[in-house]
Amino acid sequence: MIHPSAVVSPRAKLGENVQIGAFCLIHDDVEIGDNCEIQAYCELGVATPLAEGPLLIGSNSLIRSHSVFYRGSVFGEGLRTGHRVTVRELIQAGKDLQIGTLSDLQGHAQIGHHVRLHSNVHIGQKSHIADFVWIFPYVVLTNDPHPPSHVCVGPTIEAYAAIATMSVILPGVRVGEGALVGAHSSVARDVAPHTVVAGNPAKFITQTSNIKLKDGSNEPAYPWTRHFHRGYPPEVVARWLNGEDYAKT
Amino acid sequence: MIHPSAVVSPRAKLGENVQIGAFCLIHDDVEIGDNCEIQAYCELGVATPLAEGPLLIGSNSLIRSHSVFYRGSVFGEGLRTGHRVTVRELIQAGKDLQIGTLSDLQGHAQIGHHVRLHSNVHIGQKSHIADFVWIFPYVVLTNDPHPPSHVCVGPTIEAYAAIATMSVILPGVRVGEGALVGAHSSVARDVAPHTVVAGNPAKFITQTSNIKLKDGSNEPAYPWTRHFHRGYPPEVVARWLNGEDYAKT
Amino acid sequence: MIHPSAVVSPRAKLGENVQIGAFCLIHDDVEIGDNCEIQAYCELGVATPLAEGPLLIGSNSLIRSHSVFYRGSVFGEGLRTGHRVTVRELIQAGKDLQIGTLSDLQGHAQIGHHVRLHSNVHIGQKSHIADFVWIFPYVVLTNDPHPPSHVCVGPTIEAYAAIATMSVILPGVRVGEGALVGAHSSVARDVAPHTVVAGNPAKFITQTSNIKLKDGSNEPAYPWTRHFHRGYPPEVVARWLNGEDYAKT
Repeated sequence: MIHPSAVVSPRAKLGENVQIGAFCLIHDDVEIGDNCEIQAYCELGVATPLAEGPLLIGSNSLIRSHSVFYRGSVFGEGLRTGHRVTVRELIQAGKDLQIGTLSDLQGHAQIGHHVRLHSNVHIGQKSHIADFVWIFPYVVLTNDPHPPSHVCVGPTIEAYAAIATMSVILPGVRVGEGALVGAHSSVARDVAPHTVVAGNPAKFITQTSNIKLKDGSNEPAYPWTRHFHRGYPPEVVARWLNGEDYAKT
Repeated sequence: MIHPSAVVSPRAKLGENVQIGAFCLIHDDVEIGDNCEIQAYCELGVATPLAEGPLLIGSNSLIRSHSVFYRGSVFGEGLRTGHRVTVRELIQAGKDLQIGTLSDLQGHAQIGHHVRLHSNVHIGQKSHIADFVWIFPYVVLTNDPHPPSHVCVGPTIEAYAAIATMSVILPGVRVGEGALVGAHSSVARDVAPHTVVAGNPAKFITQTSNIKLKDGSNEPAYPWTRHFHRGYPPEVVARWLNGEDYAKT
Repeated sequence: MIHPSAVVSPRAKLGENVQIGAFCLIHDDVEIGDNCEIQAYCELGVATPLAEGPLLIGSNSLIRSHSVFYRGSVFGEGLRTGHRVTVRELIQAGKDLQIGTLSDLQGHAQIGHHVRLHSNVHIGQKSHIADFVWIFPYVVLTNDPHPPSHVCVGPTIEAYAAIATMSVILPGVRVGEGALVGAHSSVARDVAPHTVVAGNPAKFITQTSNIKLKDGSNEPAYPWTRHFHRGYPPEVVARWLNGEDYAKT
């Protein structure tokens, strides 16, 4: 299950049924749970003076090719990444996290359960991302209000919020539960729960409940938990179907 | 012509004079035409349950290093990529396609002949890109009008259109023949042929014919086929020079 | 110090104490100074018909994994890159340059000393970047005023300027000394020294001296040299502390 071209430290701890692809480098201080697949050209456990402790990858995870993970971060079970993701130290992430191709997590961040980061997302240090959040391509979460400086205040994205493509969330901004940030927005102020903001600078547009599904049904598009269930655990979906639109984990 | 460190499946079909670089992985279900160069660290033919059929790469193609192609896509002759491109399944692309460094093609898309995708372009599923289109860095073609959802309606970019840097094309939008989308625009409505739009949201600015070349000539900058011919086939250029500004292939 | 899986040309010139990581490719026409570390999966000295001359990497440099450098560029001592950077030919760069993860330098550019390019920055050809400049994630420096064309006029970023996340600098624009471009801006006109611009299109907001530090001190945030010194040489910092806010190298 370990490709003969891979270089795996004898100190790395691999669970049962772990596959390590061709040309991988698995360093010391890496612990990978059972039933994981690490694809080709990945380097896991890159050393850094900024963190102690191992890189922990939960069971049933898939890390696609050309990805780089530093030591000192913890991922719950069911992590799935795209290709070429970069993940630095001191990230604490829950279970069932998806990180899209080319995404760059700068470390020192908190990420909840069932979070979906699409391709080419940039998560600055000190970001807080709650459960069930969606972040779409080319979104940047920033942290320095007057760069360059030593001030570092990450954004907070609350549960079930969705941030559409090419938006920037400015330092310290809080995006409320179930809110929607429209594409190509620049968000300088807090976003109230269950509202839509858009533009540069982003302004209040409407309540999320006023957006209709463009599938011919004319049903509300939000809360999205009423119509979008792909990839979520059946017990969570059951709660959504039972009216708990914003069920907690 | 195959570097000794490369791992090439005996089932892969390589044409004449194909070069495979160091540390490449060429899987089953890959067919590469004659006179192609696959640079180092590339993985071709990544398996996926979402597609059957092989990855077909036309003759005279160049795939630069660290690129990943899934199986189930077809590329005509003369494909040229930058480094680290990611290309998923079920893309049907014509001949003489260029895909810039870091670009991410999400699959399930139609791409015409002689298309130019510059660096770091993101092509969402269900996109339609016609012949002779130009798409510049950090442009995103989206497909979900109210994310997350199961609705997926890609944009259509018609022949000879150009989309400048850092623009987002929203779901289902049609950018007309020969149109120009200015840099950093957010395009929510169809763009009429031969017009310029720009801004967030993008608005009509002028006809493309009103833009002058900044090369001292004061000639029109559009149709660009009157002054820009680099890399196109001589027979196509001849037709442009003969007054067929928007010649069809 | 050279990993046994690396492929290093006997014509490459390596200084003392140079480390070459696993699966690297070091071609002819590469000269690496003393005390450098080249991490895994890097390819240095990629051939191109567009440049003659070697790739020169100054001493005490660190190139992180999966990076690609073409031949024909020169970097002073103390270069530090993130992962997966792409650096093309004919770049002339000073000492102590930082290039963040995923950044794409298209070549044919001038870069001064002590420049900081953060993650995912795109530097088009013919850009001029002076000493002590900061460029933040997803910034694009463009060069074609009416794409596609043969006109190529890069921006000029003067010393100590800072360009915040997701901004586009349009062709030929000059950003003045110590100026600040706000996040998500589209800069079509020259920016006066020591001013702040922001928006799409970017407009004058205020003098940089009017921005206060959000660290409780209420001191000015600019010139940033009064409070931010991390990683700069002590002799430069001493001059800043001595009142030379915009000291020349």
